[in-house]
Amino acid sequence: MRVTKGAETSARLVESMLELIQARGYSGTGLNTVVEHARAPKGSLYFHFPQGKEALGEKAVELAAERFRLLVTETALEPGTPGDLIRRVIDVLAGMLADSDYQLGCPVSVVTLEMGAQSERLRDACASAFASWITPMTEYLAAQGHPHATARTLATAVVGSVEGAMIISRAQRSVEPLRCAAHALALLLDREAS
Amino acid sequence: MRVTKGAETSARLVESMLELIQARGYSGTGLNTVVEHARAPKGSLYFHFPQGKEALGEKAVELAAERFRLLVTETALEPGTPGDLIRRVIDVLAGMLADSDYQLGCPVSVVTLEMGAQSERLRDACASAFASWITPMTEYLAAQGHPHATARTLATAVVGSVEGAMIISRAQRSVEPLRCAAHALALLLDREAS
Repeated sequence: MRVTKGAETSARLVESMLELIQARGYSGTGLNTVVEHARAPKGSLYFHFPQGKEALGEKAVELAAERFRLLVTETALEPGTPGDLIRRVIDVLAGMLADSDYQLGCPVSVVTLEMGAQSERLRDACASAFASWITPMTEYLAAQGHPHATARTLATAVVGSVEGAMIISRAQRSVEPLRCAAHALALLLDREAS
Repeated sequence: MRVTKGAETSARLVESMLELIQARGYSGTGLNTVVEHARAPKGSLYFHFPQGKEALGEKAVELAAERFRLLVTETALEPGTPGDLIRRVIDVLAGMLADSDYQLGCPVSVVTLEMGAQSERLRDACASAFASWITPMTEYLAAQGHPHATARTLATAVVGSVEGAMIISRAQRSVEPLRCAAHALALLLDREAS
């Protein structure tokens, strides 16, 4: 029972860290705010994360990585062309962005940009997150008949396009840049496959 | 003489703010660090930027916007296909990233992600920065024969792809993701034009 409660508190802290990073980045997220946001007892943070903010940030990046990886791999199981897959993934992201009133962004991008020069541990977590999205996309495109090297190039470009479009959409408070990415990627992938 | 010196100090403060944002983001950049980095007299910050950090951040975003806009518009004057233009722009960005040992990122992306939910002024500066890159790229692609709406869609996708690829390249400490974006965009634009 105690273990379960502890695991719940730990998960709530990671979830809160993730949400706060999405809204305001890593540096702007204070640990007191995380504890309040998670409605966790004071002291629970250093109990669960004795290594502090960096370890909590790493877990938040890993959680975000796993969620987006699942979105991509589950969407890839549905029938359709690579362009259809991209459109569906981008529809989900556009919905999340609009539902949050453009207040949430990709946590992996912002942690890379803020902490890439200061924390090898966080930079490494972000590199792994990007790899965890590029790899299943590569496998998917290879299964669609692309040579592996081409599939990897296209998959890397797809992940980059989606990341960049999320940022422009947030700045412009419009899903239009995400729609432009979906259109361009569908053109690229469905023609490339034909 | 006094005016000139004041303008120089002001420009140095903006330049330092820009470099620090590129390395560690907006929230992680303290104003004392900016003054030290700029070797500016204490007090000069509030003399030149009485509205404080937000106004200085806005000027830094504007400076970054203007530099990248010039890179795009000047490169567009060189002969070649749209794919050649993208490759040249990405070559310059890849060189900057590698020369900085992957310590510098796009300041507009990071300010969007950190401050988009907190400062309308900074979000607006970022939206204008993205627009200032998308607009000349749209005009360039329209001049290559694309209908205006298609040119705008492709230009938005190009800017997003480059932004996203910069982030993945920084996380992975490799110019490979930028090369993948160049390859995919050249495929898209040069085929689209043919």
